[in-house]
Amino acid sequence: MSKPFVFEKPAGMRDTLPAFYQKNEKIKSAIKNEMESWGYQFIQTPTLEYHDTVGEASAILDQQLFKLLDMEGKTLVLRPDMTAPIARVVSSSMKNVAYPIRLAYSSPVFRAQQREGGRPAEFEQVGIELIGDGTASAEAEALALMTEVIKKSGISSFTVAVGHIGFVQELLAEILGNDNRTGELLRYLNEKNYVGYASHVKELPLSSIDTQRLLKLLNLRGGADVLEEAAKLSPNVKGQRALTELKTLYTLLEDYDAAQNIVFDFTLFSHMSYYTGIVFEGYAAGIGAPISSGGRYDELLSRFDRHAPAIGFAIRMDYLIEALDNKNEFLRPQCILFTPERRKEALQWAKEKREKGIKIVMQDLSGVTNVDDFSKRFDEVHYLIGSQQGEDFS
Amino acid sequence: MSKPFVFEKPAGMRDTLPAFYQKNEKIKSAIKNEMESWGYQFIQTPTLEYHDTVGEASAILDQQLFKLLDMEGKTLVLRPDMTAPIARVVSSSMKNVAYPIRLAYSSPVFRAQQREGGRPAEFEQVGIELIGDGTASAEAEALALMTEVIKKSGISSFTVAVGHIGFVQELLAEILGNDNRTGELLRYLNEKNYVGYASHVKELPLSSIDTQRLLKLLNLRGGADVLEEAAKLSPNVKGQRALTELKTLYTLLEDYDAAQNIVFDFTLFSHMSYYTGIVFEGYAAGIGAPISSGGRYDELLSRFDRHAPAIGFAIRMDYLIEALDNKNEFLRPQCILFTPERRKEALQWAKEKREKGIKIVMQDLSGVTNVDDFSKRFDEVHYLIGSQQGEDFS
Repeated sequence: MSKPFVFEKPAGMRDTLPAFYQKNEKIKSAIKNEMESWGYQFIQTPTLEYHDTVGEASAILDQQLFKLLDMEGKTLVLRPDMTAPIARVVSSSMKNVAYPIRLAYSSPVFRAQQREGGRPAEFEQVGIELIGDGTASAEAEALALMTEVIKKSGISSFTVAVGHIGFVQELLAEILGNDNRTGELLRYLNEKNYVGYASHVKELPLSSIDTQRLLKLLNLRGGADVLEEAAKLSPNVKGQRALTELKTLYTLLEDYDAAQNIVFDFTLFSHMSYYTGIVFEGYAAGIGAPISSGGRYDELLSRFDRHAPAIGFAIRMDYLIEALDNKNEFLRPQCILFTPERRKEALQWAKEKREKGIKIVMQDLSGVTNVDDFSKRFDEVHYLIGSQQGEDFS
Repeated sequence: MSKPFVFEKPAGMRDTLPAFYQKNEKIKSAIKNEMESWGYQFIQTPTLEYHDTVGEASAILDQQLFKLLDMEGKTLVLRPDMTAPIARVVSSSMKNVAYPIRLAYSSPVFRAQQREGGRPAEFEQVGIELIGDGTASAEAEALALMTEVIKKSGISSFTVAVGHIGFVQELLAEILGNDNRTGELLRYLNEKNYVGYASHVKELPLSSIDTQRLLKLLNLRGGADVLEEAAKLSPNVKGQRALTELKTLYTLLEDYDAAQNIVFDFTLFSHMSYYTGIVFEGYAAGIGAPISSGGRYDELLSRFDRHAPAIGFAIRMDYLIEALDNKNEFLRPQCILFTPERRKEALQWAKEKREKGIKIVMQDLSGVTNVDDFSKRFDEVHYLIGSQQGEDFS
């Protein structure tokens, strides 16, 4: 009855085996505890949502959505992120809960991949949303919590890059106007293709001063002094306001003792089109992709008829775990191999151990085909074999 | 920008709000700990699987599968259960791990519903699979663990009904032959439509002795003496062997101190077509649907080219929680409302509390529109307002 596809999984789909599962659970639990201790409350939303509600609001490219039809012919999507579903919940079941609302989640999200061997099409995000608070305090809280969560997960060497959608958009609009050329350059930034950005800028019919201003944007990465550099690019009032926001934010993060991991990066431009203000990404040593990301999204809630400023971030569990040093701390259970006449003895022994928190496999010897192969999975195997009484634990 | 579907969810899809989430996590954690202490190791499989592999093996009716097409036109399904995916893993990534293998899972599964207002289309199962052990010890372990897990979840009043697919099939086959009439009666049993079963039996052209035998099956529910009653229905050798298995199982469960919750029920016939031997369901007082179910499936692994006897069960979290008394033990965070000049004081205070495991929301007063509505969400609100120093906690 063997079939061609018998062991295959769809493109981008993964199995999580015990060793990784255990590590993931341990880290996730530390992260969730930290988020809860800051007063964030976890919720869960369904895996499937209507395309017309959450699919459209989610800011994930349409071709990355897993779509299916329900029995009435409506298009459903597998949730591509958690921000849009939470906006839906806050605007419906929780519409009578006064702002600000602090929610958290720990959920798989889905992004269809063109082919196997690439990125995972399903991955776990643990994140928070702080909805209904437009203050700098809210921004500082989100960034400080993200920093604390990364620390608690065991990563000591990391950076949080902070940018501002508003500043970049205003600079580009001031120089290029609101036309396609702005969109083109933002696309290069989103792809982190700075070479492409620079050569595209050089091809544009601009004054040499404006060309330089656009190129200087690429250098606006570093410590707090970058904010002074940015001010010299003299964007308009909105742009200057963005810089003031970032300065305030930095001061607040100092109070949180969370400023030392911050670098400013004005090239940061997320593919999540709902972001409106500060955006940020966490980077750990040795991992090319961000282990976390977030930003302010002050327009999304309006789509769900409950306008509010909002900010949030998500930890990407697979990349985070990759960033942790790869010590194998996998805790194996112990094993008791018993024959039926000594079952009660084995049971009693297992019960006592289990009550002490020790993991014990109880295995009837007659259920094992290859005792050697079976036993080598355990660090300790105890034998209760034959009719003699008393200890013969190995 | 309001849309017709803006707040709607697909049929059978649910949001889990903080109070339920917290309760669910607490119970789930107790269950997972118990399973781990018996040496079961948790794994995770992808939400999407190929229809040709797991979809067909899963024993869920085709019309209950959520299906979609991948980019190559292959049919994918949202996993309808975890048993078939785990069989796939055991036969591929874990094919070199010697039997018996003890695995566990905690995952949402998906069953499409015809309409809203009915059963949930996505629900969480926490379960185990013990693969590669055909002994009575394996059966006793599965049932004893299920019993222990239900106890640990806080349910004191429950029953575990145990039946045997083999006995029922043999009795029906002996009287009716292996024709459609057997299938018809099994369908009534699966639906627990005993009235329908009885009237269908009475319409069959059978001797009055055989009619009585078929009707007596409905009475084969109760304590260990039911096994004697069942023996009088004199099924064939295979049927008698099934009864012997159940007698042995009962003795072993006495050793586990898990026999007092067991009732035998020969009307038990699962819709999961892969079951081959004992089947069982957990019932809690006041809940119509089983809070857990499982059974022996000795043929499923052959479909994945790694033949092995196997047994498993799943706890259905939503029904289990419904069965728990509904005390509202929702733990709310405390709140500090502060003004910027006292931010550092608030931060220090929050930090100390959080380190003690107390959940603290820190809220900038200027981020709150309606302080009264906001404050009433918390049992305790502390005010750090204005420039004066010192304690003014309410």
